[in-house]
Amino acid sequence: MFNVKAYSAASATSPLASATIPRREPTVRDVQIEILFCGICHSDLHYARDEWHSVMPTVYPCVPGHEIVGRVTKVGAAVTRFKAGDVVGVGCMVDTDQTCPHCESGHEQFCADMTLTYGSPDKHLGGVTYGGYSDSIVVNERFVLRVPTNLNLSGVAPLLCAGITTYSPMRHWGVTQGKKVGIVGLGGLGHMGVKFAHAFGAHVVVFTTSPGKKEDALRLGADEVVISRNPEEMQQHAGSFDFILDTIAAEHDINAYLNQLKVDGNLTLVGAPDKPLAVSAFGLIFGRRSLSGSPIGGIPETQEMLDFCGAHNITADVEVIPIQKINEAYERMAKSDVKYRFSIDMASLRSE
Amino acid sequence: MFNVKAYSAASATSPLASATIPRREPTVRDVQIEILFCGICHSDLHYARDEWHSVMPTVYPCVPGHEIVGRVTKVGAAVTRFKAGDVVGVGCMVDTDQTCPHCESGHEQFCADMTLTYGSPDKHLGGVTYGGYSDSIVVNERFVLRVPTNLNLSGVAPLLCAGITTYSPMRHWGVTQGKKVGIVGLGGLGHMGVKFAHAFGAHVVVFTTSPGKKEDALRLGADEVVISRNPEEMQQHAGSFDFILDTIAAEHDINAYLNQLKVDGNLTLVGAPDKPLAVSAFGLIFGRRSLSGSPIGGIPETQEMLDFCGAHNITADVEVIPIQKINEAYERMAKSDVKYRFSIDMASLRSE
Repeated sequence: MFNVKAYSAASATSPLASATIPRREPTVRDVQIEILFCGICHSDLHYARDEWHSVMPTVYPCVPGHEIVGRVTKVGAAVTRFKAGDVVGVGCMVDTDQTCPHCESGHEQFCADMTLTYGSPDKHLGGVTYGGYSDSIVVNERFVLRVPTNLNLSGVAPLLCAGITTYSPMRHWGVTQGKKVGIVGLGGLGHMGVKFAHAFGAHVVVFTTSPGKKEDALRLGADEVVISRNPEEMQQHAGSFDFILDTIAAEHDINAYLNQLKVDGNLTLVGAPDKPLAVSAFGLIFGRRSLSGSPIGGIPETQEMLDFCGAHNITADVEVIPIQKINEAYERMAKSDVKYRFSIDMASLRSE
Repeated sequence: MFNVKAYSAASATSPLASATIPRREPTVRDVQIEILFCGICHSDLHYARDEWHSVMPTVYPCVPGHEIVGRVTKVGAAVTRFKAGDVVGVGCMVDTDQTCPHCESGHEQFCADMTLTYGSPDKHLGGVTYGGYSDSIVVNERFVLRVPTNLNLSGVAPLLCAGITTYSPMRHWGVTQGKKVGIVGLGGLGHMGVKFAHAFGAHVVVFTTSPGKKEDALRLGADEVVISRNPEEMQQHAGSFDFILDTIAAEHDINAYLNQLKVDGNLTLVGAPDKPLAVSAFGLIFGRRSLSGSPIGGIPETQEMLDFCGAHNITADVEVIPIQKINEAYERMAKSDVKYRFSIDMASLRSE
């Protein structure tokens, strides 16, 4: 066991502050990683502030962060896929049972015994797992991803959550050349959705409530932008989408988007409003439409996504901050004041 | 044009009563059918009482009935598939544009220009179309189905709506041997769902609020029955279903059933509650589950369903009534007091 620097919250109302946390010595299958960048996901804020108390109460002190990019510093004796110096990524999970049918088929995201990167019981050290707002992390090699060498690392970090969360459902529901795809909301998830859908060759339409986002949406790869508060614009596209990715975590009228789907079209939720959505059965029945959800992706698909990003030169648009600005970044993120993701430069932690 | 006997409602509050309605002389592509049995669908009651006013206001006088079985009495000069004496069926639609991509691919149920069997503008005679509570009907041959000769005709009638409505989504979502399938609600639709799922080789579980329905559910082909008000019974099956068919048109907790689905499982609504359903996004996201709807099926699939019923000796369980008892039957249907569908013996109309 060794101690590393981190930023942690002591309670739901405490700001994140400098702290020291333990990491295990790498076991034979572990990879030790010096963290270079860590993206800030909205989940980090929810968890640090115990906003998901009813589903998953926060254990303090908590160290968020599950969009991790770093450099391998040490590997266990049985590790074959990585060596010191490799640039790697770690996402939302650091372990599963590795033996269930989901794990066997590379869909670890559905394993019932998943260890999340932060906030899950730590099977090695006791307590809970600590995330990427830290100097280094030790992870079983199965959950370590290879990062393409041509990409800007600050923009790679968010791929490990925002990237795979948007890539996976589009692959699952068959977004390809010629399909018409809607992206609802242009934030951290939405802007990745636009980039992927565009790279897959789809005709991409961004739905937003903010006319001010139009130019940026087109720059990111959208073919059209629909102002969702304008009923006429909405009506023009009614019944025409093969697939819609809904990234909005706030309450909103889901039926307005279900009605945009063509026959057999699918709308997938990746943002999770805490209140139930009011869904009209008629809208689903008459077009045999479907409404579904999707979490992250499995490890093989996450690697596929990173390789795809390498081949298509895709990264997240990030604002790089030092860890010392984390609390300010949370405030700004809560107001959606970021284009489109914060990425923490972890050199700032080491120079403290 | 010729006149035929029928039962029609004069207003939302009038009982159905004997009347005379016009039918067109068969055109070259038409089939004239003497109606032998007509099933009573809950939609008939909704329409007769103008309960769908906001979506589809009823035009009076109205003649419901879209579960029609009869005998061909006359065919137009260009009709090749039917001849006088054939036993045939007609379901919920009697025409479409016949040229759109949906029609071209045999998915006429999605055509934007559909003529419903009753209540749609009648392109031949003006006014609206009149349904199967009548002595005879004249229908374009494309929308006429061949009925297997080995089946009891009173029980065949409900196949034209309740049958195809449950058969189609199970085929679409891949219900086959070895799949675990739930049927929510054991009424007109639900009892057909049980029969089909059983015939497809699935492991069939009926969800019902009524312990009294258990024995009947098993007789119809269920392998298990879950009393949905019992949280322990529900918990035992959580996360285990490939597919659930939800036939409940009343308000109910859809999340309790979504949580019964395994990863990638689908729940399809065929009953349409008039109020929106409250859907938890988390339940969809974590298991990549989907919620969808399904209307009837296309004409080729409806023929496939009838042929399947012929091969597996499947019909609806019906209570046969004379047309003179139609108003009493509506009252009983509104209270779910029927096992499981009323079928009108149209000889009763001719002997009036």
